[in-house]
Amino acid sequence: SLYDYEHDGQAIYRQSFAIIRSEADLARFSPVEADVAVRMIHACGVVALAEQIVFGGGDIVRAREAILQGAPILCDAGMVERGVTRARLPANNEVVCTLHDARTFDLAAHIGNTRTAAAIELWGERLDGGVVVIGNAPTALFHLLDLLHQGAPKPAAIIGVPVGFVGAVESKQALIDAGLDIPFVTVRGRMGGSAIASATINALASDRL
Amino acid sequence: SLYDYEHDGQAIYRQSFAIIRSEADLARFSPVEADVAVRMIHACGVVALAEQIVFGGGDIVRAREAILQGAPILCDAGMVERGVTRARLPANNEVVCTLHDARTFDLAAHIGNTRTAAAIELWGERLDGGVVVIGNAPTALFHLLDLLHQGAPKPAAIIGVPVGFVGAVESKQALIDAGLDIPFVTVRGRMGGSAIASATINALASDRL
Repeated sequence: SLYDYEHDGQAIYRQSFAIIRSEADLARFSPVEADVAVRMIHACGVVALAEQIVFGGGDIVRAREAILQGAPILCDAGMVERGVTRARLPANNEVVCTLHDARTFDLAAHIGNTRTAAAIELWGERLDGGVVVIGNAPTALFHLLDLLHQGAPKPAAIIGVPVGFVGAVESKQALIDAGLDIPFVTVRGRMGGSAIASATINALASDRL
Repeated sequence: SLYDYEHDGQAIYRQSFAIIRSEADLARFSPVEADVAVRMIHACGVVALAEQIVFGGGDIVRAREAILQGAPILCDAGMVERGVTRARLPANNEVVCTLHDARTFDLAAHIGNTRTAAAIELWGERLDGGVVVIGNAPTALFHLLDLLHQGAPKPAAIIGVPVGFVGAVESKQALIDAGLDIPFVTVRGRMGGSAIASATINALASDRL
């Protein structure tokens, strides 16, 4: 090779996590929260993300327990669904993304919202005790919060990290303020996205790094 | 709804792109480069990414021309492949990810590199004139550059935006310095990833915003 670089995948992971732990301020997190935060930072390459990560609504370990007991993983976008590492799932958990269901077109028109928001209604009974992972659309997170305020069955946990410039900041603040007694993890501000979302669920799915 | 938010997907896109153009310094980019940069920023929520985006190796419009003529899209990771919006591809282009091909295990052992690096050897003849999209693994980008220096057929363009803490910075600098006469887009520093990679190819695939 013309280049001198690390060729071993496991060594790359180990070195990456060590760099993140040496640079990021993780002191305010529990050990499980810190593991999750490290993987979120790993997914985006930004150590300063640590300052924006918020855990609340209860112990996020309940997400891991739900996954161990077979909870479905409910994703808002195809990239999030694709990013869930099946080999880390302990109970052959179902990984669901309903965005490309043909019914979303009519449903979106009916509820006057985006197809991504409509898609979460198609999760159906799986919402009850499922683990929600929203990595793309603020409208999906807003619509989920509305459904929960209206009495929809509670998921076991919410990973709510939509990205962007219109509604992302506000929807994540709404999650923080919702007072739903559902463990959640989010990121204040504009950052987020499918890679961070997948990394978060992958961290919660297993205690392996 | 308890919340006041924009429900119309197209309006969300328009407002997002307008905010990015008002906040990001895009003056050094050509119009096509600026369109690509806007979508890269949209994917990660970080306006300051603009300062780190580098185009080089020739006119990036050659990527769009290749896609129009049916070039395959060669992706290093499943999330990148999943993020390519098929409806934007003008020629029913093949979208390829070979990472989960069973041959990568033996091939990785044979070449002493990661499975992601090995996977790009399985692109085969499609590398000749294809459009490469690397959003995850520095080792894949390093290995591609080595193959090209050894005389492998040239792709039409390289989107090289691996993310992370070990090799990402260095592999992207190597792309910038390679002098291959292949149009490329990259991001200096640690940021990158599958969402930015998919957004870049989606921007290049169509002149629609």
